Amino acid sequence: MTQNDTIVALATASGSGAIAVIRLSGPEAISYASQQFNSITRKDIASQKSHTIHLGHIVDGSRIIDEVLLSIFKNPHSYTGEDIIEISCHGSSFIQQEIIQLFLRKGCRMANAGEFTLRAFLNGKLDLSQAEAVADLIASDNAASHQLAMQQMRGGFSNEIQKLRDELMNFASLIELELDFAEEDVEFADRTEFKNLLGRIIKVLKGLIDSFAVGNVIKNGIPVAIVGEPNVGKSTLLNALLNEERAIVSDIAGTTRDTIEDEIAIGGIGFRFIDTAGIRETRDVVESIGIKKTFEKMEKAQVIILMLSTKDILKDQSRILLELEKVKNRFPQKPLLVIVNKIDVLDDDTHNKLQSFISEGSKFEFLKLSAKSGEGVEELKTHLLGFVNTGALKNNDTIVTNSRHYDALIKALEEIQKVSYGLDSGLPSDLMAIDIRQALYHFGEITGQITTDDLLGNIFANFCIGK
Amino acid sequence: MTQNDTIVALATASGSGAIAVIRLSGPEAISYASQQFNSITRKDIASQKSHTIHLGHIVDGSRIIDEVLLSIFKNPHSYTGEDIIEISCHGSSFIQQEIIQLFLRKGCRMANAGEFTLRAFLNGKLDLSQAEAVADLIASDNAASHQLAMQQMRGGFSNEIQKLRDELMNFASLIELELDFAEEDVEFADRTEFKNLLGRIIKVLKGLIDSFAVGNVIKNGIPVAIVGEPNVGKSTLLNALLNEERAIVSDIAGTTRDTIEDEIAIGGIGFRFIDTAGIRETRDVVESIGIKKTFEKMEKAQVIILMLSTKDILKDQSRILLELEKVKNRFPQKPLLVIVNKIDVLDDDTHNKLQSFISEGSKFEFLKLSAKSGEGVEELKTHLLGFVNTGALKNNDTIVTNSRHYDALIKALEEIQKVSYGLDSGLPSDLMAIDIRQALYHFGEITGQITTDDLLGNIFANFCIGK
Repeated sequence: MTQNDTIVALATASGSGAIAVIRLSGPEAISYASQQFNSITRKDIASQKSHTIHLGHIVDGSRIIDEVLLSIFKNPHSYTGEDIIEISCHGSSFIQQEIIQLFLRKGCRMANAGEFTLRAFLNGKLDLSQAEAVADLIASDNAASHQLAMQQMRGGFSNEIQKLRDELMNFASLIELELDFAEEDVEFADRTEFKNLLGRIIKVLKGLIDSFAVGNVIKNGIPVAIVGEPNVGKSTLLNALLNEERAIVSDIAGTTRDTIEDEIAIGGIGFRFIDTAGIRETRDVVESIGIKKTFEKMEKAQVIILMLSTKDILKDQSRILLELEKVKNRFPQKPLLVIVNKIDVLDDDTHNKLQSFISEGSKFEFLKLSAKSGEGVEELKTHLLGFVNTGALKNNDTIVTNSRHYDALIKALEEIQKVSYGLDSGLPSDLMAIDIRQALYHFGEITGQITTDDLLGNIFANFCIGK
Repeated sequence: MTQNDTIVALATASGSGAIAVIRLSGPEAISYASQQFNSITRKDIASQKSHTIHLGHIVDGSRIIDEVLLSIFKNPHSYTGEDIIEISCHGSSFIQQEIIQLFLRKGCRMANAGEFTLRAFLNGKLDLSQAEAVADLIASDNAASHQLAMQQMRGGFSNEIQKLRDELMNFASLIELELDFAEEDVEFADRTEFKNLLGRIIKVLKGLIDSFAVGNVIKNGIPVAIVGEPNVGKSTLLNALLNEERAIVSDIAGTTRDTIEDEIAIGGIGFRFIDTAGIRETRDVVESIGIKKTFEKMEKAQVIILMLSTKDILKDQSRILLELEKVKNRFPQKPLLVIVNKIDVLDDDTHNKLQSFISEGSKFEFLKLSAKSGEGVEELKTHLLGFVNTGALKNNDTIVTNSRHYDALIKALEEIQKVSYGLDSGLPSDLMAIDIRQALYHFGEITGQITTDDLLGNIFANFCIGK
């Protein structure tokens, strides 16, 4: 399948770097580029070899836009399988825009999100699950998610699905062959062997489906809400965890107006920390918006950290315990960790009182730390890592991270179970064949042998522009 | 001059894009890369031609970090004049870091800011003012600053300075030759011709020095402070000018806690708009910090926009006029524009009252607009553009944008004026020769024929890492 138009997009991150790369792909890529590029040595770009680089100027008439390096990739030896030109220009946003605008005026079209990879898929350079892994790879921000995406991009997951599909296809053909000889009552497909195959497929599918829970966590990170009264030190704790000054920290209660998110990798797993504005009752309109947001964020988080200051605890122990109950009742399924902050400034007496409060609330999990001095922050990290099951990751098993694959696997499993049940209950071959075809369909959805425009649209819309 | 170590850095903007480029430069660049790169077609990188691109995997032992494109540039045909390897990898920050860390472990050193360009300068690929233009080019964010940087990078400015220097050098040699024949009282250097040359040099230098005012504005943008009471619509105006939601806009007075800066290009010139927290008296600690910042920002701005709401004006006209006086007295030299916002919601009666207030304060410049509806925003842009003199830019003259060049030009001018005065007053040739040498020294500072480590350190510290 060949595309008729030539697309252009910025391929590197937006913003200011030393250089930026602009990418053109399509039948006119080389011809457009050769018209707007003056090689330093007056070479004609169109007659140059694939995989070569040329120094020169991008020009718009007599106006020089930039001195650039131009790379040529000729079809089919390119990422998309089409002719590709990559222009490495100076990293000013202004220059990037000028060059892209120039090629748009020439007749290029702005690439849609993921369109380069879509073209690679349509031209058979990648299967669909590999194409999806490209987006995952770009989004990977820790060792675990990187490992999974790399494995999938190199075809690990596709191969596993493809192997099951081939075996099932083989049996499907034999069973469908039986239908042609229906009156003769022959059995081409060995039922015992078929039963074994179905058993194996069910086992593999269940394993893959189960792996999604951990895969999802690895891919998206674990959202952790840090909740507590203003001025209790949430921002400071976030900074201690992030080792940088992301949140505004001040001594005035109520400084954190917006929720701030950031992710750090602990033991190769991403945790998304969400700093919230607290749940203190207030009449301030901006604050109230913050509190509403806090509850929304708690809802979405997988782990809740509730921060308390010793001062507040000692002032009103019963109210604090009531608040803990309230959070626990509202989110009974979520791990809740209660952190007592600022233990670096406690005298012995206060410390004893604090300890007796902790004993009283012994059904909650308490952790004492000082976000300021860093004491206890490592224990917190260990605690957080305890919430994740990383067993599958360590065993190098195939792990499903993509919810589209998860859905297809569930549907395939349902069909296979129907086939298995049909086989046990002596269902006629023609009915069984229909269920097998359905299972094959769902396998094909994963690797892209079966696609619809809607499906492709959905998948590639999640890519960044330029890939 | 050759560098012994091999440097590595991310060359593209940080953050997430489709791809990122990591750059190695130095004697070991190719050897390090060939050890960590497995070509898909099992090519040996070290034996490949310059300016070629190769598909393969970056590996750390048996672990595959990423599938990449690797570009080879062999010395002297590269940006730095050294061997360069560029690795185009997937744009995840995690992958970027993994690859950079890998090469650091191999023996590469993290590049300092601007070190690739410094090496280009040391290896004679660029003169110093061209090297500085590279940083300007990357920082350029509008047509005017881009045009100036491009002109300077292509040697326009260097050529002008070099030509003056050569002519002056020529006379210096003749005058110094006279010193050898001092007893014979000969004149090798024609004094009339010399006088003419000095006149020409002084004219050119003065022109360049004068151009700095506009050059500086073009390069750095014009800072415009938007000052006014909370809730008067400063953030909304900023958004109307920026066409996007950068500032937090709410109906609660005092929402803008931090000053927010952003730049837009109007008629090719950059304006940096600075939204401030207003100058209302308050007891709120966070607010007071904001007010202090407002005055600091007004101090730094070249244009002050004072925003008023009709409601405030009608409530207390005399206080408002007093405040306008206060700002005008404090910053008598700065253009001050008074904006009356929210004119979209005025009834006829209110509008008449407002008009009579404006007549009363007729010594101030008023502009009525609606930040919300956009009415009057274009007039504001025209007004702002009126503050800039862009004549020189349109005439395609050489414009000085760099304060280091400006300083050197001022010093050169002083020396040339001394020479000129010495010539008129019959100063002995040997004393005149010293002043000429000094002028030549300052010319040489601009193009880099004269450098010190300190000077180079200062210049390249302002570059981004990776360039």
